Amino acid sequence: MTETFRPQLRSFFASVAAFKDGTDTPRLFLERCIETIDARESEIGAFVTTNLPAARTAADLSSARWASNKPWSMIDGMPVAIKDIMETADMPTEQGSPLFAGWRGARDAAAVAALREAGAVIIGKAVTTEFAAAQARGTRNPWDLTRTPGGSSSGSAAAVGAGMVPAALGTQVVGSTIRPASFCGCFGYKPSVGGINRGGSFDEFSQSCTAVLAASLSETWSVAKEVSARAGGDPGYLGILGPPALPATHKPRRVAMLETAGWTKATDEARQALHDAVGRMKKAGIEVVDRTADKVVAAVESAISNAYALTMNINAWEGRWPLNTYSHDMGRSNLSKHAQDRLAEGNAMTIDVYRGLVRERQHVRDAYAALNDRCDVCVTLSAIAEAPVGLESTGDPIFAVPASLLGVPSLSLPVLQIGGLPLGLQLIGFANEDASMFAAASRILTLFDK
Amino acid sequence: MTETFRPQLRSFFASVAAFKDGTDTPRLFLERCIETIDARESEIGAFVTTNLPAARTAADLSSARWASNKPWSMIDGMPVAIKDIMETADMPTEQGSPLFAGWRGARDAAAVAALREAGAVIIGKAVTTEFAAAQARGTRNPWDLTRTPGGSSSGSAAAVGAGMVPAALGTQVVGSTIRPASFCGCFGYKPSVGGINRGGSFDEFSQSCTAVLAASLSETWSVAKEVSARAGGDPGYLGILGPPALPATHKPRRVAMLETAGWTKATDEARQALHDAVGRMKKAGIEVVDRTADKVVAAVESAISNAYALTMNINAWEGRWPLNTYSHDMGRSNLSKHAQDRLAEGNAMTIDVYRGLVRERQHVRDAYAALNDRCDVCVTLSAIAEAPVGLESTGDPIFAVPASLLGVPSLSLPVLQIGGLPLGLQLIGFANEDASMFAAASRILTLFDK
Repeated sequence: MTETFRPQLRSFFASVAAFKDGTDTPRLFLERCIETIDARESEIGAFVTTNLPAARTAADLSSARWASNKPWSMIDGMPVAIKDIMETADMPTEQGSPLFAGWRGARDAAAVAALREAGAVIIGKAVTTEFAAAQARGTRNPWDLTRTPGGSSSGSAAAVGAGMVPAALGTQVVGSTIRPASFCGCFGYKPSVGGINRGGSFDEFSQSCTAVLAASLSETWSVAKEVSARAGGDPGYLGILGPPALPATHKPRRVAMLETAGWTKATDEARQALHDAVGRMKKAGIEVVDRTADKVVAAVESAISNAYALTMNINAWEGRWPLNTYSHDMGRSNLSKHAQDRLAEGNAMTIDVYRGLVRERQHVRDAYAALNDRCDVCVTLSAIAEAPVGLESTGDPIFAVPASLLGVPSLSLPVLQIGGLPLGLQLIGFANEDASMFAAASRILTLFDK
Repeated sequence: MTETFRPQLRSFFASVAAFKDGTDTPRLFLERCIETIDARESEIGAFVTTNLPAARTAADLSSARWASNKPWSMIDGMPVAIKDIMETADMPTEQGSPLFAGWRGARDAAAVAALREAGAVIIGKAVTTEFAAAQARGTRNPWDLTRTPGGSSSGSAAAVGAGMVPAALGTQVVGSTIRPASFCGCFGYKPSVGGINRGGSFDEFSQSCTAVLAASLSETWSVAKEVSARAGGDPGYLGILGPPALPATHKPRRVAMLETAGWTKATDEARQALHDAVGRMKKAGIEVVDRTADKVVAAVESAISNAYALTMNINAWEGRWPLNTYSHDMGRSNLSKHAQDRLAEGNAMTIDVYRGLVRERQHVRDAYAALNDRCDVCVTLSAIAEAPVGLESTGDPIFAVPASLLGVPSLSLPVLQIGGLPLGLQLIGFANEDASMFAAASRILTLFDK
């Protein structure tokens, strides 16, 4: 076995009491983040770029607000890393592609602008795979440098998992948040589709979401809510519904355990970890039903069994643009083979085929929505196993993709482990009922007090 | 009265037979467009920039395809102007704002890439008002240089109206296509919401659409369809449904005449023009009902009566980003007073207020959808009058805004006139039934043979 670290998550909310009584400040908190970055960034490679002078200035302003008891929000002063597909006024946005090396706009993405309006400290741009898709860009897992941190939000998860920052923005269209959160041992939250405004993020897929990776459940929720309240959801959507602070703990009425298509790929250890988790839930008096016990759960399992292929086909059409113009106008040779292959798939499709896929997705969503009458939340694994060795692949997204296809909220809780490495327990909620999922998560977390 | 020109629309489809028999070519067609541009552009100001060398090269390639009887599409070789909020790989995209003077990406917007894939010739970037909103940028009406061409697709409408190009892309979130089409005497078509992929267009509003302005009904339809077939609709939408070529003429079963909130602002001449048009329809055996004759029509009139205010409030919230970062990070002094005022409105709102507006819009849409049981299409004016004198304002969008709010297709037919100046007759269809609206338009057009 390779040597593993035991990095500590770095909670910002754990320091808020000290900000209030003056024994700590956001500036000092930032310096502790920077110490960890200095210690580990050279081996992990979570960041494409940082802007520490701007971060220090922002942290000082926040410190002054806390000192006068006038923070702008619950996340005032929180250092946050931004996935490098989102525009930042003060840093380049390279999208993990040589085609965009050094590219910079002069504006902030909507979610970044919202973070700044809430007083958060934008510390840097976190590594993304090429165009938030398959091609990895070298980031290493903070728990074991021989392993992938997952993707596509590789740097966001690695930075949070390593304790470099308490929170980061990621995105997910297949499994780009839940999987790296699982591999790096942090919380990961993909909102209901449309929950966070994607303006200024190079992220156009119909089932993609801006997501949050963070050090605690309450910070995960608060970052998402503070952003959504200011930036809104995607235009026309309601944004994330629910209270500003973490919803009150609520014991779920009934939980559906989903195997998903990932079950046959999961390792024995991973399956056992899920069974153990379900055992804890049952012991705590939570009813858990599965496909063998409930016909509606069985129907959902059947409906989502093809989630990965359906998602990849939908994405192939939706990704024709911009890959077609990147290839034609910006330089085909600087597209990875992965990207060229995806473009070829998209070029082989017609809009009639795509329409069929969209209608099929709607049927799957309808089948899943019927489960809401019977259950408050679903539980499954976040990944088939701990992070695999190797940096070429970012691992299998099979467990994360159903929630992406369904457009429903999902959440990875860093409560399982295999051989000393983290594995996430995934909750999957119902559309626009993100708050319910967090209320249940809050209860379930207490079963894993370490 | 000021002197008026009588510019001629320049149809591309009218030349296709000659392309086929070799007596004309797309290159020669392009040169005729350029002659008109040379003759009138200095006084009209429809373009921000052109790329004539690239256009000539593209037209030559198209000419070769027509010569070998292998055009890529029905619009192969068609010169098209692009509203300057859409990215073009070979030209800047300035958005009508000094903040973006000289700004250029290296890629094509999805709709532009689709046009090129269909063989169309991208001739230049057409003037838009600042960020496709209120602040005019000096374009003049080709019929009367003292008058506005309308906005925000000012240059697109002026270029088509002047016969500089047979077609242009525009956009509409309030009245930015129907109104300028009306003022400039060309066809204007706003698809069902989501009909044309807005990727790479700086256009994020929930009810905004990429739109087409063109010289004939069949070209209007074909440009939209050829683009949508290749670029798709907005991600997750089905794109424009219907055949590639203009749907067969179909006499509408019943037409609803809508007064809308524009009626009290319309001039007597404009009202009379609509009454005359309705008279022609009735004379042709088409049943036309209005609010006095049909309760559902009356309910629709009531539901859409607040369309303008509701739209502007929705847009205020949705426009917070990017105006907030433009103001904060790119230079407040280079934002117009219009833009600063809109940002102030957005900043004064909360997401809860916005959610209420979105729900209210859905109620209006539901009320309108009920009309589809009784009518194939609605008819009203495109504007309250002919284009007003002056270049500061782009005119009143009150008649165009209901279809924008409703997310349904609308079409301005250049068949009315007041004092020698054009006025559009507007058809409004039902969601995703754009083809039905064109089938009815085809029939209605025959009533106005000039």
